[in-house]
Amino acid sequence: MFKTKICEILNIQYPIILGGMLWIGKSDLVAAVSEAGGLGLMGAGGMTIEEIESECAHVTEKTKKPFGVNIPLVRPDSDEMINAAIKKGASVIATSSGSPKKFTQMIQDQGCRVIHVVANVTFAKKSEDAGVDAVAAEGFEAGGHNGHDEITTMALIPQVASAVDIPVIAAGGIADGRGLVAALALGAKGVQMGTRFLATHEAAAHQNYKDAIVKMTDVGTSITGRTTIGPTRAINNQLTEMIINAEKEGAKPEELFEMIGEGRSAMACIEGNCEEGSLYCGQIGGAVKEIKSARQIVDDMISEAKTIVESLNPLISH
Amino acid sequence: MFKTKICEILNIQYPIILGGMLWIGKSDLVAAVSEAGGLGLMGAGGMTIEEIESECAHVTEKTKKPFGVNIPLVRPDSDEMINAAIKKGASVIATSSGSPKKFTQMIQDQGCRVIHVVANVTFAKKSEDAGVDAVAAEGFEAGGHNGHDEITTMALIPQVASAVDIPVIAAGGIADGRGLVAALALGAKGVQMGTRFLATHEAAAHQNYKDAIVKMTDVGTSITGRTTIGPTRAINNQLTEMIINAEKEGAKPEELFEMIGEGRSAMACIEGNCEEGSLYCGQIGGAVKEIKSARQIVDDMISEAKTIVESLNPLISH
Repeated sequence: MFKTKICEILNIQYPIILGGMLWIGKSDLVAAVSEAGGLGLMGAGGMTIEEIESECAHVTEKTKKPFGVNIPLVRPDSDEMINAAIKKGASVIATSSGSPKKFTQMIQDQGCRVIHVVANVTFAKKSEDAGVDAVAAEGFEAGGHNGHDEITTMALIPQVASAVDIPVIAAGGIADGRGLVAALALGAKGVQMGTRFLATHEAAAHQNYKDAIVKMTDVGTSITGRTTIGPTRAINNQLTEMIINAEKEGAKPEELFEMIGEGRSAMACIEGNCEEGSLYCGQIGGAVKEIKSARQIVDDMISEAKTIVESLNPLISH
Repeated sequence: MFKTKICEILNIQYPIILGGMLWIGKSDLVAAVSEAGGLGLMGAGGMTIEEIESECAHVTEKTKKPFGVNIPLVRPDSDEMINAAIKKGASVIATSSGSPKKFTQMIQDQGCRVIHVVANVTFAKKSEDAGVDAVAAEGFEAGGHNGHDEITTMALIPQVASAVDIPVIAAGGIADGRGLVAALALGAKGVQMGTRFLATHEAAAHQNYKDAIVKMTDVGTSITGRTTIGPTRAINNQLTEMIINAEKEGAKPEELFEMIGEGRSAMACIEGNCEEGSLYCGQIGGAVKEIKSARQIVDDMISEAKTIVESLNPLISH
């Protein structure tokens, strides 16, 4: 069920992809999503080459199904990261924060697929021209690093889907079967989710962070760094308040970097400090009401999506 | 086809509603949307009581079908506006920018329906408690005045739909059959569109304004006034650039008001000045590729939506 073009290309059962999450998307979660029939994507941004190798090896111990690795191209050793991931069994490389031209051919030459993350139509077209297999189009509602264009998933997906011939994966604002069917209706061939998979037993995040998502409401996140150090969306806490206030008072980027310092993500993910740490999270976190296993999420989504499609059918009978 | 709960409540054929637009949503457009089977909502914000009466009278000359009027509750004469609209044949009052408690009972006592515009879950619940017949939940991608919470349609609709029992109308980011099916999948019972209906033959906007929508791309709008005089989304031009630059330099609200002055909407709508006027428009304007009649838009949407639902069906067969 719900076998789309993206399932064929990535050799997966359901068009549900785990978004690459720094610190959080490690082998347990990646393997669990893939084993459930989706595609696990490892968040390799903060990993050394050795860690990528060992984490990928862990995945292949847990599942024989395809998985991928997310590589932020701002890392100067991106090529080594990609090679390490492929050597250790990854069959999909999701690239972000850089030019899709750089490594697409090299990855495909090794028999792997490339997904490039985009936030507007122009970059989607550039990615298609660069030969990537699919684009993940990410809306303003998504957690973590965010585009400057602020185009939302609802506005972005139909415009990207009309502009390119390669499959589009919708990212941002999706956490259940309702989001899956909506994304398919808008022209996407699959969905990518971060926040929903963060609130799982398998995510490598501190329990406090997962609990914070379950507790949050629709107005629970904010963008910081919009006018200065680059927009990111996170759960409202002392840290986001401090940054927003500093920005209002006209703080310069270097002052903000000084104030924030290093390790705010680790503070949230590893130490569970939900006030001083950075809790990247999307707006759809308000719809996440319980921590589940990755398999339960995938199974529930497919079952909900089936019910929704069935409920749409009577609407088209005369 | 596509007869939902909202169609029953509003006594309309299709769950497609014209969003109330200042200057633009006058009798021609209102009548055309209603006559096409949707619900025309007049944008009465800038009208005198006499104008509301004469415009409503014009609508009833052109169609016998139900129509409504949008009343921004910030107007001190809201009650008179409502009474004038109802006296002249409106059967739906859409209230915004104020408490839904204020006039709901009074409107319903006259046999009319009330839709209240909300931008978060809390206000949706308050509106339900106030007894309104439906809420229009409007996302961050919408044109014109925008909520401070910045919740997008994709994230907002499922959260509002889970929180209230009354029907939810999705607004923001919708311009075609893809958006209609997506909204229904997310839990809405209908859609409300401004931008798409602005680019119609019947809209009371200058041709230059309509052409600007057809020409714009996905990155063609910005929010101004976010930190100062209240967020509004409009097409990027000299005016938005001037405001954004002034805000970056720390302009105070009174300085911005002074700089912007009066009549920027009229400058765009009536004079067709697309650089100095305020061209309210949603992000989905990038998907609007031609000016159509309101009837063509409704017919095309229903036909596209039917095709989409049919295309989803094979996905749920084993």
